[in-house]
Amino acid sequence: MFQTYDDHNDPSLGAPHAALLRAELKRLSLDGFLIPRADPHQGEYVPPSDCRLQWLTGFSGSAGMAAVLGEDAAIFVDGRYTIQVREQVDMEVFPAQHLINEPVTGWLSEQLKPGQRLGYDAMLHTVREVRRLRDVCERAGAELVALEDNPIDAVWADRPEAPVGAVSLHPERLAGQPAGEKIAAIQASVVEKGAEACVLTQPDSIAWLLNIRGSDVSHTPLPLSFAVVPSSGKPELFIDGRKLSNAVRDELHVLTDIFEPAAFRSSLEALGKRGAKVMLDPALAGQAIADAVTRAGGSLVEAQDPVLLPKAIKNEVEIAGTRAAHLRDGAAYVRFLCWFDEVAPTGDLDEIGAAEKLEQFRHDTGVLKDVSFDTISGAGPNGAICHYRVSKKSNLRIPVGRPFLIDSGAQYEDGTTDITRTLAVGPQSAEMKRHFTLVLKGHIAISTARFPDGTTGAQLDTLARIDLWKAGLDFDHGTGHGVGSYLGVHEGPQRIAKTGIAPLQPGMILSNEPGYYPAGEYGIRLENLELVRAATPIEGGERPMLGFETLTLVPFDLRLVDRDLLNGSEIAWLNTYHARVLAELAPLLDDKTVTWLEQATESI
Amino acid sequence: MFQTYDDHNDPSLGAPHAALLRAELKRLSLDGFLIPRADPHQGEYVPPSDCRLQWLTGFSGSAGMAAVLGEDAAIFVDGRYTIQVREQVDMEVFPAQHLINEPVTGWLSEQLKPGQRLGYDAMLHTVREVRRLRDVCERAGAELVALEDNPIDAVWADRPEAPVGAVSLHPERLAGQPAGEKIAAIQASVVEKGAEACVLTQPDSIAWLLNIRGSDVSHTPLPLSFAVVPSSGKPELFIDGRKLSNAVRDELHVLTDIFEPAAFRSSLEALGKRGAKVMLDPALAGQAIADAVTRAGGSLVEAQDPVLLPKAIKNEVEIAGTRAAHLRDGAAYVRFLCWFDEVAPTGDLDEIGAAEKLEQFRHDTGVLKDVSFDTISGAGPNGAICHYRVSKKSNLRIPVGRPFLIDSGAQYEDGTTDITRTLAVGPQSAEMKRHFTLVLKGHIAISTARFPDGTTGAQLDTLARIDLWKAGLDFDHGTGHGVGSYLGVHEGPQRIAKTGIAPLQPGMILSNEPGYYPAGEYGIRLENLELVRAATPIEGGERPMLGFETLTLVPFDLRLVDRDLLNGSEIAWLNTYHARVLAELAPLLDDKTVTWLEQATESI
Repeated sequence: MFQTYDDHNDPSLGAPHAALLRAELKRLSLDGFLIPRADPHQGEYVPPSDCRLQWLTGFSGSAGMAAVLGEDAAIFVDGRYTIQVREQVDMEVFPAQHLINEPVTGWLSEQLKPGQRLGYDAMLHTVREVRRLRDVCERAGAELVALEDNPIDAVWADRPEAPVGAVSLHPERLAGQPAGEKIAAIQASVVEKGAEACVLTQPDSIAWLLNIRGSDVSHTPLPLSFAVVPSSGKPELFIDGRKLSNAVRDELHVLTDIFEPAAFRSSLEALGKRGAKVMLDPALAGQAIADAVTRAGGSLVEAQDPVLLPKAIKNEVEIAGTRAAHLRDGAAYVRFLCWFDEVAPTGDLDEIGAAEKLEQFRHDTGVLKDVSFDTISGAGPNGAICHYRVSKKSNLRIPVGRPFLIDSGAQYEDGTTDITRTLAVGPQSAEMKRHFTLVLKGHIAISTARFPDGTTGAQLDTLARIDLWKAGLDFDHGTGHGVGSYLGVHEGPQRIAKTGIAPLQPGMILSNEPGYYPAGEYGIRLENLELVRAATPIEGGERPMLGFETLTLVPFDLRLVDRDLLNGSEIAWLNTYHARVLAELAPLLDDKTVTWLEQATESI
Repeated sequence: MFQTYDDHNDPSLGAPHAALLRAELKRLSLDGFLIPRADPHQGEYVPPSDCRLQWLTGFSGSAGMAAVLGEDAAIFVDGRYTIQVREQVDMEVFPAQHLINEPVTGWLSEQLKPGQRLGYDAMLHTVREVRRLRDVCERAGAELVALEDNPIDAVWADRPEAPVGAVSLHPERLAGQPAGEKIAAIQASVVEKGAEACVLTQPDSIAWLLNIRGSDVSHTPLPLSFAVVPSSGKPELFIDGRKLSNAVRDELHVLTDIFEPAAFRSSLEALGKRGAKVMLDPALAGQAIADAVTRAGGSLVEAQDPVLLPKAIKNEVEIAGTRAAHLRDGAAYVRFLCWFDEVAPTGDLDEIGAAEKLEQFRHDTGVLKDVSFDTISGAGPNGAICHYRVSKKSNLRIPVGRPFLIDSGAQYEDGTTDITRTLAVGPQSAEMKRHFTLVLKGHIAISTARFPDGTTGAQLDTLARIDLWKAGLDFDHGTGHGVGSYLGVHEGPQRIAKTGIAPLQPGMILSNEPGYYPAGEYGIRLENLELVRAATPIEGGERPMLGFETLTLVPFDLRLVDRDLLNGSEIAWLNTYHARVLAELAPLLDDKTVTWLEQATESI
């Protein structure tokens, strides 16, 4: 099994750990230090060796930062984690602040005194972040001090080793394009930007570029590493050699020169000494990288990571792979639904039981590589916590008479899935059905949208909300995120959200997941993955349009649909989708499951 | 009558005028000069004395710029004007470039040679614009030279005098708030920004602030002027004294110190000499203003014009006024429609005839102050030109069997109107009805939207387009612009468009005007003005929502509606709106017009 439900956090360690850190800061003549959740790759998953924020405070969420000064300290988390942080962290030692409304910069500008020295680990903060921090310190008359070694590491007694997960090749039959071609394309964009080299700090960018996968962090097959891609010639890959088998090393060696991570800095300095212009993404690259280049005499070309866009635009082979993955995943999921319908109405099933069984059905495919994230298995009130992760402590029995929310996904080597269904357990009230149907209307509005070239996800987001808005309701998360191809289940730049400024392009995969969450009662979210593609031309149409092909193949629970709230085209969409689900999945299922699926996909 | 249909442009003057300018540039040892369409107030309407771009090139559009170098020159216009510029300008002398796709900065960076001196009138280019120009010149090794006197003025033989339109008071019974209160509120925002004074360069900001109106430019009752608002004490108003009657001067003198425009610069310099922090809007204020402050030793606080937002958010008195204006305007408009229905089917009516008659009906109200812009009266193919202005030369007879588009508005002292209707003249094809109905669906989607606090116009824009998109169609303009209160028919910051990043707030007025324009055939646009207000709470709703109240009271032409394309709630909206139009207007109309209106507003 790829997930555990343990919950080891001990708020009482906050005080002694803060004391250890403060002693070390004193030794270094520092008045304060910042502890972000990030590792040098700014990714969603961080290996245990880099979970410094968790070691210090106990907080295990996926975003946040702590600041420690001589007397005061604070932890900054976003709206997703305001409850969790109070359970995991000693609020006496680290009072919680809202990352957006009471940001660390504001807190620092109140706390810092002239002449104070605030340290930061220059690999962990991006160039863009450091600009803001520098401004704050300047205004306060304080000094922002870049550190090469992290003071936490000096006092962290049982710090885990950095991961050395094995790297595997992602063959062309899955990747669809030889790595050599990809490297040439990236080199062309380096030349176009007038740079002599580009630094890649995102492991998924490197994985895509070199057609490799890794196993360093949970649920995302990426190899922690850095790369420098020169405008011509072989890229340099900086990776712990123990991750490479001889066979993998031999293949990689054709494409790249391979070095230990410790050599990364000297490579940057060598570029600097040559006076090179080095391209980096200021939103992703650590300040230490920029410093290494510029202090040695080089200059920077700031630009978006050039891999982001080609990685987001899947090629035909990747698209065929993701379709196959979703077909396989759909069959496993329907087996789960059929089982759930038998077991859940007894009232004895709990959140972990449901999550484990779903993982089991996926495992039964024989090709499951991992789950794509920790399953959100939310019974009753836990369903209303958008980013809930079930633990043995929080585990609830799934109540009869309420919707049950389950958000999960799988990593197969041909594609990554992510699906949320909200399921009826026993009879459901008219109000529950109304909420479910309003969310479904938003889901259908996104799925059936057609839009011209250049349309951004921000422009589509409202379609998922307008029917909820008209009912005085809303949901506090984006409608959709980008999804990788056997890579991160969250990837950019594409997203359907107010902040989604990247135009949607054919080949991009996005989730479509509106929701509604009456606090303390239940959660509703309906999520399919959608592929952006050219829409079939329409008679009388004069402009080419883009649209979505739904990749996910799992029925929506019709027992929660209030048909009267749907218009004709919404009913037609639902019936057509269900007919497709039945037709595509039935050949993969046993008779009993087919019988279940037939009734679950009946026309309404 | 407030509009003429003359068309005095003579492309043949471009060559001699360019020669005159080049001789003057030589005298000034300049290698080039920029001629924007703007005056120092960056407004939509420019007085004849500031129409330098038109004098030089013949181009009369509302946005654009020319660049003249020793040998080469070019004119830059946006997509609205690509046809018009070729009719008005000698393309041999001023080849046309696309303002967005081939911007003046790109052209300059190709043309400028090291050591060259490019002149610009520092009052006419904003701080933000000059930053871009300075970058271009620096990269080219050229010098950007700020000029105090515009070289065009030295060679423009028959340059008109600057306008001295009379200023009138806009009494509290219309403005709803005493000017003294408004000044105090603006002073509070000056203090909040840490500035000692704020420069206002927008005449409509000054008009709102001081509760005055003017008559310096076409169709917008604003007094060309500048103001400096200190953080406390009396504001300084810089305005030609001949615009002020004794009575108006006495009233204004209570609020402000009044100076001639020539004293503006010395006031800025005085602030600078005191080392003051001076607030200005870098997107609106001319570089000369910034220079006057900083060269004298002051510093700048860059911030949005603090009047924009309070001016956009109308108070209850202004809202009552705009409702009254729309009622009055609706009655005049329906009289026009009733007349149009009698006359147009003969096929003898032309675009000017329709525009004049509509203006006449508005004039008959006895309180028309002006039209709010030149009427867009577009028959057949002229309707497909979004920003068409009818002239005696372009004037077409309105063909029977095609939709006719008319976009017009009025200035009353209690409110500004702006309405577009597309009217059936004779039988209309199924295709025309389909296009009309798709546009109507977009219009209804905006009008019925409810949305949470913080929602921007950008988030709503897609609602107006999604049904067109699904048919493979679109329109190339924003869905809506802000509208002033007896001020500009176009005002910011609110707009419904991809670029509309200002959150919509109760009291803002916006147009709702989706369209569709099959080139060479006809134009469809359906426009009402909408007031943002708190939406009536809905049972089961948990968040307060905003919505629109439709201000415009004029029926849509049902002969162009394809009922089968509307869903139940769209039909209900249309019938409810028409019932309201009938109920509100009937008491103001003669029997014959009421009879006409009854059939025009019948339930479908």
